[in-house]
Amino acid sequence: MNNPIKDKNAEINSIIYRYLPKSDKYTELITDAMNYSVQAGGKRIRPIFMQEAYKLFTDQEETETLHRFMAAMEYVHTYSLCHDDLPAMDNDQYRRGNLTTHAKFGEAFGILAGDGLLNYAFEVISEYMANNLDYSELKKATKAFNILTTKAGYKGMVGGQTLDVYFDKNKMFDQKQEQINFIYNNKTAALIEASFMIGAILGGASEEEVQIMEKVANNVGMAFQIKDDLLDITSTQEVLGKPINSDEKNGKKTLVSFLGMEEAERLVEQLSKDAIEQLHLIGKRNETLEQIIHLLINRDN
Amino acid sequence: MNNPIKDKNAEINSIIYRYLPKSDKYTELITDAMNYSVQAGGKRIRPIFMQEAYKLFTDQEETETLHRFMAAMEYVHTYSLCHDDLPAMDNDQYRRGNLTTHAKFGEAFGILAGDGLLNYAFEVISEYMANNLDYSELKKATKAFNILTTKAGYKGMVGGQTLDVYFDKNKMFDQKQEQINFIYNNKTAALIEASFMIGAILGGASEEEVQIMEKVANNVGMAFQIKDDLLDITSTQEVLGKPINSDEKNGKKTLVSFLGMEEAERLVEQLSKDAIEQLHLIGKRNETLEQIIHLLINRDN
Repeated sequence: MNNPIKDKNAEINSIIYRYLPKSDKYTELITDAMNYSVQAGGKRIRPIFMQEAYKLFTDQEETETLHRFMAAMEYVHTYSLCHDDLPAMDNDQYRRGNLTTHAKFGEAFGILAGDGLLNYAFEVISEYMANNLDYSELKKATKAFNILTTKAGYKGMVGGQTLDVYFDKNKMFDQKQEQINFIYNNKTAALIEASFMIGAILGGASEEEVQIMEKVANNVGMAFQIKDDLLDITSTQEVLGKPINSDEKNGKKTLVSFLGMEEAERLVEQLSKDAIEQLHLIGKRNETLEQIIHLLINRDN
Repeated sequence: MNNPIKDKNAEINSIIYRYLPKSDKYTELITDAMNYSVQAGGKRIRPIFMQEAYKLFTDQEETETLHRFMAAMEYVHTYSLCHDDLPAMDNDQYRRGNLTTHAKFGEAFGILAGDGLLNYAFEVISEYMANNLDYSELKKATKAFNILTTKAGYKGMVGGQTLDVYFDKNKMFDQKQEQINFIYNNKTAALIEASFMIGAILGGASEEEVQIMEKVANNVGMAFQIKDDLLDITSTQEVLGKPINSDEKNGKKTLVSFLGMEEAERLVEQLSKDAIEQLHLIGKRNETLEQIIHLLINRDN
């Protein structure tokens, strides 16, 4: 069976790398650290989802606006990893077998590379928007832009990360299920929601369709995170590429702690089924998008 | 003599505070830290410059777009302080007599509050742009947006801060004058340039006029920074509100190290004179703007 996540990897990387910051004499100190972080690899599922969501709504050629949003989304995701890995946060030295940004370039540069990437994500998009779009395209791009800022910010990813860090730093392990849900919805699902929504908007989806895409993506994001928790228990270090049982060792509560393995597995199935059913409400089909959702939810690493 | 920087403080603060993030049950952890950082005070010269630059070009009422950009500019400046104060950067416990964000909320929250503020600056603007502007206003706002992202990013403030931190962390004190110039131009002047340019664009300035404003602001920013270096030598802790001779104690080179006091004072005068002369090329007058430039350059703290 083909695997579109792997098959698309080279194409997606070429889009992400195309817009990387260019360095000159004095800026290469920071662009080296920024570009290292982005080029460290990953599944690239956010830009993939954005591209497939776009294709669900239009047969027209992909636009430069879409490609810049795809790159920007990965830069935002990468900045969040740069900062999550910092000594004051998760203090991780390795990610996917490579030194993390702060481990390679020093702590100050781990902070600055993340700052640079978050800022640059918005620069890559606004640079193009400021010069190239007619009113209709500019309105779509501005809506997409606002979704990116909202889902990445304090009402989205930053908010989820904050609650997660708060429990961690205060060694509070009596979280309620509702709080874990908030963390998953924001730390993990928010950027996936943004990816689905932005692809849909740029592809010409109606407001109602964008709302459906948000729900589809929320189910996908929640299933993705619970699957992560399950793999942490059931997988092996060889397959997963990182130590297993890390949550238990860190005393970290997950939704699996509340639900148990069996119920958690059932929930992943249900969320996956709901996602596909909601997707079908749109009345258009993109088989690749459905296949990617299945692959992510049934993955073994 | 009246002092427009002080006279305008309450009005500017009311604009900056109007758009602060609203908290709910789980987001107040992060909004508390973000809002604390913004409310810690300061001269607010960037939004003041933006407002006066706007007034130079139009007699029309101030728009909500302008006000949101003014607030966003201060949020971007505040995020940069949050991160500069971190232990891995300058490791400052106090700023203007208040605990710095990381000193009050912990290091992880110092990072997250900065991230939240940078992201939120773009959210405050794009939220409004996405729903309220006709094509002509939207084009102006998008150009202004792109200037904010560029001047704050790796080609601007982040780039300048990176070179500064690099010398500091590597205990390299053999900088060349050209390198110090790069740091001043980017770490300090870039956001002041953005403030002048954005005010001008939103006020309806032509491209040529925006370029003149960029040069005016560059002179103001450079003069402001050299004045800072001079005050570090000539002032007292009482007047300055922070320890003096900090550059010398830290072995930090400034432009004054290269030029000497007298020549540095002459340069501040020259930059100030150039700024006003260039401003007059525009053929419109804003006495308050000129007064603020004089006040900043002749300040004693």
